[in-house]
Amino acid sequence: MKLTLVKIGGNVIDNPDACAAFLQAFAQLEGQKILVHGGGKIATQTAAQLGIETKMVEGRRRTDRPMLDVVTMVYGGLVNKNLVAQLQANSCNAIGLTGADGGIIRSVKRPVKTIDYGFVGDIEQVNAGQIDALLQSGLVPVIAPLTYSAEGLLLNTNADTMASATAVAMAQKHKMNLIYCFEKKGVLSDPDDDDAVISKLNPASYADYKEKGIINKGMIPKLDNAFAALQSGVRRVTICHAEDLLDAVEEKAGTVLEI
Amino acid sequence: MKLTLVKIGGNVIDNPDACAAFLQAFAQLEGQKILVHGGGKIATQTAAQLGIETKMVEGRRRTDRPMLDVVTMVYGGLVNKNLVAQLQANSCNAIGLTGADGGIIRSVKRPVKTIDYGFVGDIEQVNAGQIDALLQSGLVPVIAPLTYSAEGLLLNTNADTMASATAVAMAQKHKMNLIYCFEKKGVLSDPDDDDAVISKLNPASYADYKEKGIINKGMIPKLDNAFAALQSGVRRVTICHAEDLLDAVEEKAGTVLEI
Repeated sequence: MKLTLVKIGGNVIDNPDACAAFLQAFAQLEGQKILVHGGGKIATQTAAQLGIETKMVEGRRRTDRPMLDVVTMVYGGLVNKNLVAQLQANSCNAIGLTGADGGIIRSVKRPVKTIDYGFVGDIEQVNAGQIDALLQSGLVPVIAPLTYSAEGLLLNTNADTMASATAVAMAQKHKMNLIYCFEKKGVLSDPDDDDAVISKLNPASYADYKEKGIINKGMIPKLDNAFAALQSGVRRVTICHAEDLLDAVEEKAGTVLEI
Repeated sequence: MKLTLVKIGGNVIDNPDACAAFLQAFAQLEGQKILVHGGGKIATQTAAQLGIETKMVEGRRRTDRPMLDVVTMVYGGLVNKNLVAQLQANSCNAIGLTGADGGIIRSVKRPVKTIDYGFVGDIEQVNAGQIDALLQSGLVPVIAPLTYSAEGLLLNTNADTMASATAVAMAQKHKMNLIYCFEKKGVLSDPDDDDAVISKLNPASYADYKEKGIINKGMIPKLDNAFAALQSGVRRVTICHAEDLLDAVEEKAGTVLEI
Protein backbone atom coordinates (compact mmCIF):
# COMPACT_ATOMS: atom_id res chain seq x y z
CA MET A 1 0.00 0.00 0.00
CA LYS A 2 1.12 3.57 -0.63
CA LEU A 3 2.67 5.25 2.40
CA THR A 4 4.05 8.79 2.72
CA LEU A 5 6.59 9.75 5.37
CA VAL A 6 7.13 13.47 5.84
CA LYS A 7 10.07 14.90 7.80
CA ILE A 8 9.55 18.43 9.10
CA GLY A 9 12.47 20.48 10.40
CA GLY A 10 12.80 22.51 13.58
CA ASN A 11 12.65 25.87 11.80
CA VAL A 12 8.99 25.29 10.88
CA ILE A 13 8.17 24.14 14.40
CA ASP A 14 9.69 27.37 15.76
CA ASN A 15 7.22 29.43 13.72
CA PRO A 16 3.62 28.93 14.98
CA ASP A 17 1.89 30.26 11.84
CA ALA A 18 4.08 28.27 9.42
CA CYS A 19 3.63 25.21 11.61
CA ALA A 20 -0.18 25.54 11.70
CA ALA A 21 -0.29 25.90 7.88
CA PHE A 22 1.99 22.89 7.45
CA LEU A 23 -0.14 20.72 9.79
CA GLN A 24 -3.30 21.67 7.91
CA ALA A 25 -1.67 20.52 4.65
CA PHE A 26 -0.28 17.36 6.25
CA ALA A 27 -3.75 16.52 7.60
CA GLN A 28 -5.09 16.72 4.02
CA LEU A 29 -2.53 14.26 2.58
CA GLU A 30 -4.37 11.22 1.31
CA GLY A 31 -3.54 7.64 2.27
CA GLN A 32 -1.44 6.26 5.12
CA LYS A 33 1.17 8.67 6.45
CA ILE A 34 3.81 9.25 9.10
CA LEU A 35 5.29 12.52 10.37
CA VAL A 36 8.84 12.70 11.78
CA HIS A 37 9.75 16.01 13.39
CA GLY A 38 12.94 17.74 14.42
CA GLY A 39 13.53 19.76 17.53
CA GLY A 40 13.82 23.46 16.86
CA LYS A 41 15.38 26.08 19.07
CA ILE A 42 13.05 25.56 22.04
CA ALA A 43 15.31 22.87 23.55
CA THR A 44 18.33 25.18 23.51
CA GLN A 45 16.23 28.04 24.91
CA THR A 46 14.72 25.85 27.63
CA ALA A 47 18.16 24.50 28.55
CA ALA A 48 19.49 28.05 28.84
CA GLN A 49 16.51 29.07 31.03
CA LEU A 50 17.22 26.06 33.26
CA GLY A 51 20.88 27.12 33.52
CA ILE A 52 22.09 24.11 31.53
CA GLU A 53 25.05 24.90 29.34
CA THR A 54 24.85 23.69 25.73
CA LYS A 55 28.14 21.92 24.99
CA MET A 56 29.20 21.62 21.37
CA VAL A 57 31.57 19.00 19.93
CA GLU A 58 32.58 19.51 16.30
CA GLY A 59 29.51 21.62 15.59
CA ARG A 60 27.12 19.19 17.24
CA ARG A 61 25.44 19.49 20.58
CA ARG A 62 26.74 17.09 23.20
CA THR A 63 23.83 15.40 24.98
CA ASP A 64 24.85 15.07 28.62
CA ARG A 65 22.32 13.88 31.22
CA PRO A 66 20.69 17.27 31.97
CA MET A 67 20.45 17.98 28.22
CA LEU A 68 18.90 14.55 27.62
CA ASP A 69 16.19 15.44 30.14
CA VAL A 70 15.59 18.74 28.35
CA VAL A 71 15.26 17.16 24.89
CA THR A 72 12.98 14.46 26.35
CA MET A 73 10.77 17.20 27.82
CA VAL A 74 10.81 19.45 24.78
CA TYR A 75 10.89 17.04 21.80
CA GLY A 76 8.97 14.15 23.41
CA GLY A 77 6.57 16.34 25.40
CA LEU A 78 6.03 19.97 24.43
CA VAL A 79 6.66 19.78 20.67
CA ASN A 80 5.30 16.29 20.00
CA LYS A 81 2.08 16.64 22.02
CA ASN A 82 1.25 20.06 20.60
CA LEU A 83 1.68 18.71 17.05
CA VAL A 84 -0.62 15.81 17.95
CA ALA A 85 -3.30 18.02 19.52
CA GLN A 86 -3.26 20.36 16.51
CA LEU A 87 -3.50 17.45 14.06
CA GLN A 88 -6.45 16.04 16.05
CA ALA A 89 -8.14 19.44 15.70
CA ASN A 90 -7.58 19.03 11.90
CA SER A 91 -9.39 15.65 11.96
CA CYS A 92 -6.13 13.72 11.63
CA ASN A 93 -5.93 10.83 14.12
CA ALA A 94 -2.33 11.47 15.20
CA ILE A 95 -0.47 9.48 17.84
CA GLY A 96 2.75 10.91 19.25
CA LEU A 97 5.64 8.50 19.64
CA THR A 98 9.30 8.30 20.47
CA GLY A 99 11.30 5.27 19.38
CA ALA A 100 10.62 3.79 22.84
CA ASP A 101 6.82 3.77 22.38
CA GLY A 102 5.77 0.35 21.15
CA GLY A 103 9.51 -0.30 20.79
CA ILE A 104 9.30 1.12 17.27
CA ILE A 105 12.90 2.38 16.91
CA ARG A 106 15.66 0.89 19.05
CA SER A 107 19.19 2.20 19.03
CA VAL A 108 22.53 1.82 20.80
CA LYS A 109 24.26 4.60 22.68
CA ARG A 110 26.94 5.87 20.29
CA PRO A 111 30.27 4.35 21.32
CA VAL A 112 32.92 6.80 22.50
CA LYS A 113 35.87 6.81 20.10
CA THR A 114 37.68 10.13 19.96
CA ILE A 115 34.50 12.08 20.76
CA ASP A 116 31.88 11.47 23.43
CA TYR A 117 28.55 12.70 22.06
CA GLY A 118 26.80 11.65 25.27
CA PHE A 119 23.27 10.21 25.20
CA VAL A 120 22.98 9.93 21.43
CA GLY A 121 21.48 6.91 19.69
CA ASP A 122 22.62 5.12 16.53
CA ILE A 123 19.61 3.30 15.11
CA GLU A 124 19.77 -0.48 15.34
CA GLN A 125 16.27 -1.66 14.48
CA VAL A 126 12.96 -0.26 13.21
CA ASN A 127 9.94 -2.37 14.18
CA ALA A 128 8.01 -2.05 10.91
CA GLY A 129 5.37 -4.57 12.05
CA GLN A 130 4.43 -2.45 15.06
CA ILE A 131 4.28 0.74 12.98
CA ASP A 132 2.11 -1.11 10.46
CA ALA A 133 -0.29 -2.22 13.20
CA LEU A 134 -0.75 1.44 14.22
CA LEU A 135 -1.29 2.55 10.59
CA GLN A 136 -3.80 -0.23 10.04
CA SER A 137 -5.87 0.84 13.03
CA GLY A 138 -6.19 4.26 11.33
CA LEU A 139 -3.55 6.10 13.35
CA VAL A 140 -1.01 8.60 12.03
CA PRO A 141 2.33 8.22 13.87
CA VAL A 142 4.03 11.51 14.79
CA ILE A 143 7.58 10.62 15.73
CA ALA A 144 9.91 12.72 17.93
CA PRO A 145 13.71 12.55 17.50
CA LEU A 146 14.31 10.21 20.44
CA THR A 147 15.03 6.48 20.48
CA TYR A 148 15.75 4.02 23.29
CA SER A 149 18.28 1.33 24.08
CA ALA A 150 17.64 -2.24 25.18
CA GLU A 151 18.71 -1.12 28.69
CA GLY A 152 15.84 1.36 28.87
CA LEU A 153 17.84 4.54 28.17
CA LEU A 154 16.27 7.29 26.10
CA LEU A 155 18.67 8.58 23.43
CA ASN A 156 18.74 11.80 21.40
CA THR A 157 18.63 10.84 17.70
CA ASN A 158 18.96 12.72 14.42
CA ALA A 159 15.50 13.27 12.91
CA ASP A 160 16.69 13.01 9.26
CA THR A 161 18.22 9.62 10.02
CA MET A 162 15.08 8.47 11.86
CA ALA A 163 13.01 9.49 8.83
CA SER A 164 15.17 7.60 6.31
CA ALA A 165 15.62 4.51 8.51
CA THR A 166 11.85 4.34 9.08
CA ALA A 167 11.12 4.83 5.36
CA VAL A 168 13.58 2.06 4.43
CA ALA A 169 12.04 -0.36 6.94
CA MET A 170 8.49 0.43 5.79
CA ALA A 171 9.50 0.13 2.09
CA GLN A 172 9.60 -3.66 2.45
CA LYS A 173 5.79 -3.76 2.45
CA HIS A 174 4.73 -0.35 1.12
CA LYS A 175 5.16 1.88 -1.92
CA MET A 176 7.13 4.35 0.10
CA ASN A 177 7.37 8.11 -0.55
CA LEU A 178 9.79 10.08 1.62
CA ILE A 179 9.46 13.88 1.70
CA TYR A 180 11.92 16.16 3.47
CA CYS A 181 10.34 19.55 4.16
CA PHE A 182 12.66 22.40 5.02
CA GLU A 183 13.09 26.17 4.59
CA LYS A 184 14.14 26.18 0.88
CA LYS A 185 12.10 25.30 -2.20
CA GLY A 186 14.36 22.33 -2.95
CA VAL A 187 17.97 21.65 -3.84
CA LEU A 188 19.24 24.81 -5.54
CA SER A 189 21.45 25.08 -8.63
CA ASP A 190 22.44 28.57 -7.49
CA PRO A 191 22.77 29.08 -3.73
CA ASP A 192 21.98 32.80 -4.15
CA ASP A 193 18.74 32.25 -6.07
CA ASP A 194 16.01 30.70 -3.93
CA ASP A 195 13.95 29.97 -7.05
CA ALA A 196 16.71 28.02 -8.87
CA VAL A 197 15.25 24.67 -7.86
CA ILE A 198 16.75 21.53 -9.42
CA SER A 199 13.63 19.54 -10.31
CA LYS A 200 15.36 16.15 -10.74
CA LEU A 201 18.63 15.05 -9.16
CA ASN A 202 20.40 11.76 -9.86
CA PRO A 203 23.70 10.40 -8.48
CA ALA A 204 25.67 11.67 -11.50
CA SER A 205 24.28 15.22 -11.39
CA TYR A 206 24.61 15.20 -7.57
CA ALA A 207 28.34 14.32 -7.88
CA ASP A 208 28.72 17.11 -10.42
CA TYR A 209 27.02 19.75 -8.20
CA LYS A 210 29.15 18.64 -5.26
CA GLU A 211 32.36 18.89 -7.27
CA LYS A 212 31.45 22.43 -8.34
CA GLY A 213 30.74 23.33 -4.71
CA ILE A 214 27.11 24.22 -5.53
CA ILE A 215 25.74 21.59 -3.15
CA ASN A 216 27.63 21.68 0.13
CA LYS A 217 27.52 21.74 3.94
CA GLY A 218 24.32 20.52 5.59
CA MET A 219 22.75 19.36 2.35
CA ILE A 220 25.36 16.64 1.79
CA PRO A 221 24.47 14.33 4.71
CA LYS A 222 20.77 14.91 3.96
CA LEU A 223 21.20 13.94 0.30
CA ASP A 224 23.56 11.02 1.04
CA ASN A 225 20.89 9.72 3.40
CA ALA A 226 18.20 10.27 0.77
CA PHE A 227 20.04 8.47 -2.05
CA ALA A 228 20.82 5.59 0.33
CA ALA A 229 17.08 5.32 1.08
CA LEU A 230 16.32 5.04 -2.67
CA GLN A 231 18.99 2.33 -3.00
CA SER A 232 17.23 0.47 -0.17
CA GLY A 233 13.79 0.34 -1.73
CA VAL A 234 12.15 3.72 -1.06
CA ARG A 235 10.23 4.59 -4.26
CA ARG A 236 10.56 8.36 -4.26
CA VAL A 237 12.40 10.99 -2.24
CA THR A 238 11.40 14.66 -2.53
CA ILE A 239 13.03 17.68 -0.91
CA CYS A 240 10.79 20.74 -0.72
CA HIS A 241 9.66 23.78 1.21
CA ALA A 242 7.23 23.05 4.05
CA GLU A 243 4.75 25.41 2.34
CA ASP A 244 4.76 23.27 -0.81
CA LEU A 245 3.95 19.87 0.71
CA LEU A 246 0.75 19.22 -1.24
CA ASP A 247 2.30 20.40 -4.53
CA ALA A 248 5.40 18.30 -3.90
CA VAL A 249 3.26 15.18 -3.49
CA GLU A 250 2.01 15.78 -7.04
CA GLU A 251 5.58 16.48 -8.28
CA LYS A 252 4.69 20.12 -8.89
CA ALA A 253 7.29 21.46 -6.44
CA GLY A 254 10.61 20.57 -4.87
CA THR A 255 13.49 18.39 -5.98
CA VAL A 256 12.80 14.74 -6.82
CA LEU A 257 15.75 12.37 -6.36
CA GLU A 258 16.25 9.56 -8.86
CA ILE A 259 18.56 6.58 -9.10
CA MET B 1 -11.59 -10.06 28.52
CA LYS B 2 -9.91 -9.28 31.84
CA LEU B 3 -8.24 -5.88 31.94
CA THR B 4 -6.32 -4.24 34.78
CA LEU B 5 -5.87 -0.49 35.03
CA VAL B 6 -3.28 0.70 37.56
CA LYS B 7 -3.01 4.31 38.69
CA ILE B 8 0.35 5.28 40.15
CA GLY B 9 0.83 8.51 42.08
CA GLY B 10 3.47 11.17 41.77
CA ASN B 11 5.20 10.27 45.04
CA VAL B 12 6.36 6.93 43.59
CA ILE B 13 7.52 8.64 40.39
CA ASP B 14 9.58 11.06 42.49
CA ASN B 15 11.53 8.15 44.02
CA PRO B 16 13.67 6.38 41.35
CA ASP B 17 14.20 3.15 43.34
CA ALA B 18 10.54 2.81 44.32
CA CYS B 19 9.53 3.60 40.75
CA ALA B 20 11.88 0.98 39.26
CA ALA B 21 10.53 -1.67 41.66
CA PHE B 22 6.95 -0.72 40.84
CA LEU B 23 7.57 -0.89 37.08
CA GLN B 24 9.15 -4.32 37.44
CA ALA B 25 6.03 -5.54 39.24
CA PHE B 26 3.70 -3.86 36.75
CA ALA B 27 5.58 -5.50 33.86
CA GLN B 28 4.89 -8.89 35.51
CA LEU B 29 1.12 -8.36 35.75
CA GLU B 30 -0.62 -10.93 33.58
CA GLY B 31 -3.20 -10.10 30.94
CA GLN B 32 -4.09 -6.83 29.27
CA LYS B 33 -3.22 -3.75 31.29
CA ILE B 34 -3.08 0.04 31.32
CA LEU B 35 -0.99 2.38 33.47
CA VAL B 36 -2.17 5.90 34.35
CA HIS B 37 0.41 8.07 36.08
CA GLY B 38 0.35 11.26 38.09
CA GLY B 39 2.83 14.07 37.93
CA GLY B 40 5.03 14.27 40.98
CA LYS B 41 7.02 17.24 42.18
CA ILE B 42 9.21 17.55 39.07
CA ALA B 43 6.73 19.87 37.34
CA THR B 44 6.71 22.29 40.30
CA GLN B 45 10.51 22.12 40.54
CA THR B 46 10.96 22.65 36.79
CA ALA B 47 8.52 25.56 36.83
CA ALA B 48 10.47 27.15 39.71
CA GLN B 49 13.76 26.66 37.82
CA LEU B 50 12.20 28.34 34.77
CA GLY B 51 11.08 31.24 36.96
CA ILE B 52 7.40 30.37 36.57
CA GLU B 53 5.39 31.06 39.67
CA THR B 54 3.06 28.29 40.86
CA LYS B 55 -0.31 29.92 41.52
CA MET B 56 -2.68 28.17 43.86
CA VAL B 57 -6.47 28.55 43.92
CA GLU B 58 -8.28 26.83 46.82
CA GLY B 59 -5.41 24.40 47.34
CA ARG B 60 -5.11 23.53 43.65
CA ARG B 61 -2.52 24.65 41.19
CA ARG B 62 -3.79 27.08 38.59
CA THR B 63 -2.64 26.04 35.13
CA ASP B 64 -1.83 29.22 33.24
CA ARG B 65 -0.19 29.05 29.81
CA PRO B 66 3.46 28.82 31.00
CA MET B 67 2.47 26.15 33.55
CA LEU B 68 0.59 24.21 30.86
CA ASP B 69 3.81 24.12 28.81
CA VAL B 70 5.71 22.87 31.87
CA VAL B 71 3.26 20.06 32.63
CA THR B 72 3.21 19.11 28.93
CA MET B 73 7.01 18.87 29.00
CA VAL B 74 7.27 17.09 32.33
CA TYR B 75 4.20 14.80 32.40
CA GLY B 76 3.88 14.17 28.66
CA GLY B 77 7.62 14.09 27.97
CA LEU B 78 10.09 13.49 30.79
CA VAL B 79 7.96 11.33 33.11
CA ASN B 80 5.92 9.47 30.50
CA LYS B 81 8.80 8.60 28.16
CA ASN B 82 11.08 7.46 30.97
CA LEU B 83 8.33 5.16 32.29
CA VAL B 84 7.89 3.77 28.76
CA ALA B 85 11.63 3.20 28.20
CA GLN B 86 11.96 1.45 31.58
CA LEU B 87 8.94 -0.77 30.88
CA GLN B 88 10.40 -1.67 27.46
CA ALA B 89 13.61 -2.72 29.27
CA ASN B 90 11.35 -4.96 31.42
CA SER B 91 9.94 -6.63 28.28
CA CYS B 92 6.64 -4.78 28.58
CA ASN B 93 5.55 -3.28 25.23
CA ALA B 94 4.53 0.11 26.61
CA ILE B 95 3.24 3.01 24.54
CA GLY B 96 3.11 6.47 26.12
CA LEU B 97 -0.01 8.51 25.51
CA THR B 98 -1.78 11.67 26.50
CA GLY B 99 -5.51 11.99 25.91
CA ALA B 100 -4.68 13.68 22.58
CA ASP B 101 -2.84 10.66 21.17
CA GLY B 102 -5.23 8.62 19.07
CA GLY B 103 -7.89 10.96 20.47
CA ILE B 104 -8.30 8.57 23.40
CA ILE B 105 -9.52 11.05 26.05
CA ARG B 106 -11.15 14.31 25.00
CA SER B 107 -12.15 17.00 27.45
CA VAL B 108 -13.46 20.54 27.65
CA LYS B 109 -11.59 23.42 29.23
CA ARG B 110 -13.19 23.86 32.64
CA PRO B 111 -15.64 26.77 32.46
CA VAL B 112 -14.81 29.76 34.62
CA LYS B 113 -17.46 30.21 37.31
CA THR B 114 -16.15 31.82 40.48
CA ILE B 115 -12.68 30.36 39.95
CA ASP B 116 -10.51 30.24 36.82
CA TYR B 117 -8.41 27.07 37.03
CA GLY B 118 -6.81 27.87 33.66
CA PHE B 119 -5.96 25.14 31.19
CA VAL B 120 -7.64 22.30 33.07
CA GLY B 121 -9.72 19.66 31.34
CA ASP B 122 -13.03 18.09 32.41
CA ILE B 123 -13.33 14.73 30.67
CA GLU B 124 -16.02 14.53 28.01
CA GLN B 125 -15.33 11.28 26.16
CA VAL B 126 -13.07 8.23 26.41
CA ASN B 127 -12.51 6.48 23.06
CA ALA B 128 -12.66 2.89 24.33
CA GLY B 129 -12.52 1.48 20.79
CA GLN B 130 -9.16 3.13 20.09
CA ILE B 131 -7.71 1.99 23.42
CA ASP B 132 -8.96 -1.52 22.66
CA ALA B 133 -7.24 -1.49 19.25
CA LEU B 134 -3.94 -0.66 20.97
CA LEU B 135 -4.43 -3.40 23.60
CA GLN B 136 -5.29 -5.92 20.90
CA SER B 137 -2.09 -5.21 19.02
CA GLY B 138 -0.22 -6.19 22.21
CA LEU B 139 0.54 -2.69 23.47
CA VAL B 140 0.36 -1.47 27.07
CA PRO B 141 -0.91 2.13 27.19
CA VAL B 142 0.91 4.39 29.68
CA ILE B 143 -1.26 7.47 30.09
CA ALA B 144 -0.06 10.90 31.25
CA PRO B 145 -2.43 13.31 33.05
CA LEU B 146 -3.15 15.47 30.02
CA THR B 147 -6.19 15.53 27.74
CA TYR B 148 -7.13 17.67 24.73
CA SER B 149 -10.08 19.71 23.54
CA ALA B 150 -11.79 19.57 20.15
CA GLU B 151 -10.04 22.88 19.36
CA GLY B 152 -6.61 21.26 19.72
CA LEU B 153 -5.75 22.60 23.19
CA LEU B 154 -3.83 20.39 25.60
CA LEU B 155 -5.38 20.42 29.07
CA ASN B 156 -4.00 19.49 32.49
CA THR B 157 -6.24 16.76 33.93
CA ASN B 158 -6.52 14.96 37.26
CA ALA B 159 -4.90 11.52 37.00
CA ASP B 160 -7.33 9.82 39.46
CA THR B 161 -10.25 11.03 37.35
CA MET B 162 -8.57 9.90 34.12
CA ALA B 163 -8.03 6.47 35.67
CA SER B 164 -11.65 6.04 36.78
CA ALA B 165 -13.15 7.49 33.57
CA THR B 166 -10.98 5.16 31.47
CA ALA B 167 -11.85 2.15 33.65
CA VAL B 168 -15.58 2.91 33.36
CA ALA B 169 -15.37 3.24 29.56
CA MET B 170 -13.37 0.01 29.22
CA ALA B 171 -15.76 -1.84 31.59
CA GLN B 172 -18.36 -1.99 28.80
CA LYS B 173 -16.35 -4.73 27.08
CA HIS B 174 -13.92 -5.98 29.73
CA LYS B 175 -13.90 -7.48 33.20
CA MET B 176 -12.33 -4.37 34.60
CA ASN B 177 -10.06 -4.20 37.67
CA LEU B 178 -9.00 -0.74 38.83
CA ILE B 179 -6.08 -0.45 41.26
CA TYR B 180 -5.02 2.82 42.87
CA CYS B 181 -1.42 2.58 44.11
CA PHE B 182 -0.25 5.17 46.59
CA GLU B 183 2.03 5.65 49.61
CA LYS B 184 -0.16 3.85 52.21
CA LYS B 185 -1.04 0.17 52.50
CA GLY B 186 -4.71 0.91 51.89
CA VAL B 187 -7.56 2.79 53.52
CA LEU B 188 -6.72 2.93 57.25
CA SER B 189 -9.09 2.43 60.20
CA ASP B 190 -6.62 4.36 62.37
CA PRO B 191 -4.79 7.23 60.68
CA ASP B 192 -1.89 6.85 63.13
CA ASP B 193 -1.36 3.14 62.42
CA ASP B 194 -0.05 2.46 58.93
CA ASP B 195 -0.83 -1.24 59.35
CA ALA B 196 -4.50 -0.77 60.27
CA VAL B 197 -5.68 -1.53 56.73
CA ILE B 198 -9.42 -1.91 56.15
CA SER B 199 -9.54 -5.00 53.94
CA LYS B 200 -13.10 -4.48 52.61
CA LEU B 201 -14.97 -1.20 52.39
CA ASN B 202 -18.59 -0.79 51.31
CA PRO B 203 -20.75 2.36 51.01
CA ALA B 204 -22.22 1.85 54.51
CA SER B 205 -18.88 1.36 56.28
CA TYR B 206 -17.41 4.21 54.18
CA ALA B 207 -20.18 6.56 55.37
CA ASP B 208 -19.53 5.45 58.93
CA TYR B 209 -15.74 6.08 58.72
CA LYS B 210 -16.38 9.48 57.18
CA GLU B 211 -18.84 10.42 59.92
CA LYS B 212 -16.28 9.50 62.58
CA GLY B 213 -13.64 11.57 60.77
CA ILE B 214 -11.40 8.54 60.29
CA ILE B 215 -11.50 8.86 56.49
CA ASN B 216 -11.03 12.47 55.47
CA LYS B 217 -9.26 15.00 53.26
CA GLY B 218 -7.68 13.71 50.06
CA MET B 219 -9.09 10.21 50.47
CA ILE B 220 -12.69 11.36 50.07
CA PRO B 221 -12.58 12.44 46.39
CA LYS B 222 -10.48 9.34 45.60
CA LEU B 223 -13.02 7.01 47.26
CA ASP B 224 -16.05 8.85 45.85
CA ASN B 225 -14.51 8.38 42.41
CA ALA B 226 -13.80 4.73 43.13
CA PHE B 227 -17.33 3.89 44.34
CA ALA B 228 -18.78 5.72 41.33
CA ALA B 229 -16.60 3.52 39.07
CA LEU B 230 -18.04 0.39 40.73
CA GLN B 231 -21.56 1.72 40.21
CA SER B 232 -20.72 2.17 36.52
CA GLY B 233 -19.60 -1.37 35.81
CA VAL B 234 -16.01 -1.68 37.05
CA ARG B 235 -15.74 -5.15 38.68
CA ARG B 236 -13.22 -4.45 41.40
CA VAL B 237 -11.46 -1.41 42.84
CA THR B 238 -8.43 -1.86 45.09
CA ILE B 239 -6.45 0.79 46.94
CA CYS B 240 -2.95 -0.32 47.95
CA HIS B 241 0.69 0.58 48.44
CA ALA B 242 2.73 0.71 45.22
CA GLU B 243 5.03 -1.95 46.73
CA ASP B 244 2.12 -4.37 47.11
CA LEU B 245 0.78 -4.32 43.54
CA LEU B 246 1.21 -8.03 42.81
CA ASP B 247 -0.23 -9.04 46.22
CA ALA B 248 -3.16 -6.65 45.75
CA VAL B 249 -4.04 -8.29 42.42
CA GLU B 250 -4.47 -11.55 44.36
CA GLU B 251 -6.47 -9.76 47.10
CA LYS B 252 -3.64 -10.36 49.60
CA ALA B 253 -3.02 -6.66 50.23
CA GLY B 254 -4.78 -3.32 50.16
CA THR B 255 -8.39 -2.28 50.58
CA VAL B 256 -11.00 -3.79 48.26
CA LEU B 257 -14.09 -1.67 47.66
CA GLU B 258 -17.48 -3.37 47.40
CA ILE B 259 -20.97 -2.27 46.50
